[in-house]
Amino acid sequence: MSITVDHPIDVPPGLRNVVVTETELGDVRGQEGFYHYRQYSAVELATTKTVEDVWFLLFEGHLPSAEERARFGAELAPLRVLPDEVQEILPAVAKAGPSFNPLAGLRTALSVLAAARELPPLWDVDPARRKADAMLVCAVTPTILAALYRLREGLDPLAPRADLGTAANWLYLVTGREPSAAEARAIEHYLIATVDHGFNASTFTARVIASTGADVVSAVAGAIGAFSGPLHGGAPDRALASLDEIGTPDRIDAWVRRKVTDGDRIMGFGHAVYRTEDPRSLMLRGIAEELGGDLVDFATTVERRIVEILAELKPGRNLYANVEFYAGVVMELCGLPRSMFTPTFAASRIIGWSANILEQAAEAKIIRPIARYVGPPPRR
Amino acid sequence: MSITVDHPIDVPPGLRNVVVTETELGDVRGQEGFYHYRQYSAVELATTKTVEDVWFLLFEGHLPSAEERARFGAELAPLRVLPDEVQEILPAVAKAGPSFNPLAGLRTALSVLAAARELPPLWDVDPARRKADAMLVCAVTPTILAALYRLREGLDPLAPRADLGTAANWLYLVTGREPSAAEARAIEHYLIATVDHGFNASTFTARVIASTGADVVSAVAGAIGAFSGPLHGGAPDRALASLDEIGTPDRIDAWVRRKVTDGDRIMGFGHAVYRTEDPRSLMLRGIAEELGGDLVDFATTVERRIVEILAELKPGRNLYANVEFYAGVVMELCGLPRSMFTPTFAASRIIGWSANILEQAAEAKIIRPIARYVGPPPRR
Repeated sequence: MSITVDHPIDVPPGLRNVVVTETELGDVRGQEGFYHYRQYSAVELATTKTVEDVWFLLFEGHLPSAEERARFGAELAPLRVLPDEVQEILPAVAKAGPSFNPLAGLRTALSVLAAARELPPLWDVDPARRKADAMLVCAVTPTILAALYRLREGLDPLAPRADLGTAANWLYLVTGREPSAAEARAIEHYLIATVDHGFNASTFTARVIASTGADVVSAVAGAIGAFSGPLHGGAPDRALASLDEIGTPDRIDAWVRRKVTDGDRIMGFGHAVYRTEDPRSLMLRGIAEELGGDLVDFATTVERRIVEILAELKPGRNLYANVEFYAGVVMELCGLPRSMFTPTFAASRIIGWSANILEQAAEAKIIRPIARYVGPPPRR
Repeated sequence: MSITVDHPIDVPPGLRNVVVTETELGDVRGQEGFYHYRQYSAVELATTKTVEDVWFLLFEGHLPSAEERARFGAELAPLRVLPDEVQEILPAVAKAGPSFNPLAGLRTALSVLAAARELPPLWDVDPARRKADAMLVCAVTPTILAALYRLREGLDPLAPRADLGTAANWLYLVTGREPSAAEARAIEHYLIATVDHGFNASTFTARVIASTGADVVSAVAGAIGAFSGPLHGGAPDRALASLDEIGTPDRIDAWVRRKVTDGDRIMGFGHAVYRTEDPRSLMLRGIAEELGGDLVDFATTVERRIVEILAELKPGRNLYANVEFYAGVVMELCGLPRSMFTPTFAASRIIGWSANILEQAAEAKIIRPIARYVGPPPRR
């Protein structure tokens, strides 16, 4: 339904290019192939910092000092532990449905957490309390996701290790194996690179809900829903499935040409914003090459040919590998099961959503556009 | 974070007056004190039709014939039954937290349902399947909410009765008592009057999530979150709490003047859109007067004095009773416990959300505005 107002303002469909808010959290420069968190290049942060550093940067506005880093880490460790109230329902949640749905499971578990901890509306509390609630949600999310996976597999959930950071803990909690330093750093790059990225539909959703003053889990639960939408993007397992489907280098050309002829989308290529190579893809290719192996060789060959053939068949479209393509390769090499590829993305993006929720809460202004009624005139 | 584009479009804060979509579902004419579902006056529908009729109208585009009404009712009855997968986790969900949170509980239960039934993304399926999923969600929502209440109270949940419609079933499922015809009709008026109402933040949230192509529960779960926000409105128990606080007619004036002096909001008065009497309030006052009794006499006295004093203290603001004020009175008279007032609102509004989700899904266009980066310039 719509609200009749004096001066409705028409804008492009889908609010395209409409500025809905100001942000100090970062920006994506699609034409330049560059994105940043606050004033720092996201790629540079990924290659030089930890997940916790970037998390602190987004929440606090500056990179942590050594002392702040230590305090932040100490604050995080207990928040990672699965709360009893969530643990109780998790086995039933994990086994719900004929196929495993970790994102729905995360939403379910966080929803229970919100009720169990009585998370207050954002607008009823001061910024410190909001931040504490967001810290809890971000810290416990990887633990919940990993526990859902292990329960679904018939394995016992593991307790987070206080001696491991966010990235290493993630690999440990899912696989049950302490990762090598190279694996932990590879996943850390990925997690940092995907913490935030523009005003995508899930981030926007989180801010719309936060703008009503609702609690942080209400906003995150909505974001998870938007994130699961086929148009949102962010399913690295699909790109890897394409590699499987292609199988051998000699089959690349025929596969790509058939896809294009059939009008199918090639997963892992093209982006709504970038008109250059996706800086996340460039970085992840480097990470993959450091890890090395047959899969990486094959993936780089496939990428090169797909880009060449797309340039030939769709000239001027500037289609390059996006974040999904090498993300799948890197996660596979680090031993993550494919069902946990998208959850890995969610485990980092929740930090970006939360930073956006905190920023929106400070604005104290509801986001409430209108619709235009175009049905038959009403009878009075 | 924001996306740098060539031509960002600036609009008023909070997207105020910005037309985000077209709709055939209805409209609110705030200056005229009139709102409609499709081409029918909502108040007229409330006084002459059933919840199922209006539900059918919003989903199908026309009021049902006798045959369509019978078929719709037959289709609904089995969908109201609590699915086993939800029943299993409901006791733990109901008891989560020091205080009862039925909206979070509903979100949790629907999230489990989505996984259990593998609800597909809206954009992967045809309109008939989308509608069937939305029917399930709308039909089972009152059952879930009532079961949560009874479990929290230490009572057994009840099975919906096939011989009762949506309104009478709601009262029966919560109270355990078959309502009188007058009670059932009173609640039916309320439910119909609150099925939909403009492009509010929860409806907008549902459409944003639906625009990513996510499943219907993802969209509804987000809407529930926005609905729970303090700025969204829709808590009839708060207005009734004010009546308790005032206590006796001789204390009205002092209470109102103190509230205004202190800068407190008077719950149940004023509306973002209406500049006249709220048509829902007018109708519900009539319903309350038909039910009659001391509470109604007191409420009408309080309403009259509050409107008079607000007109004196805040001239030109046109503050009248909104839907919350008499809604609380009507629900109290029908025997609903106060913790179930807002859930009653949600039990009808879910139909409006779903109709909006179905309409949005047909558009097949993502809603994705941008943000403007206003932080320090990034270092390359």
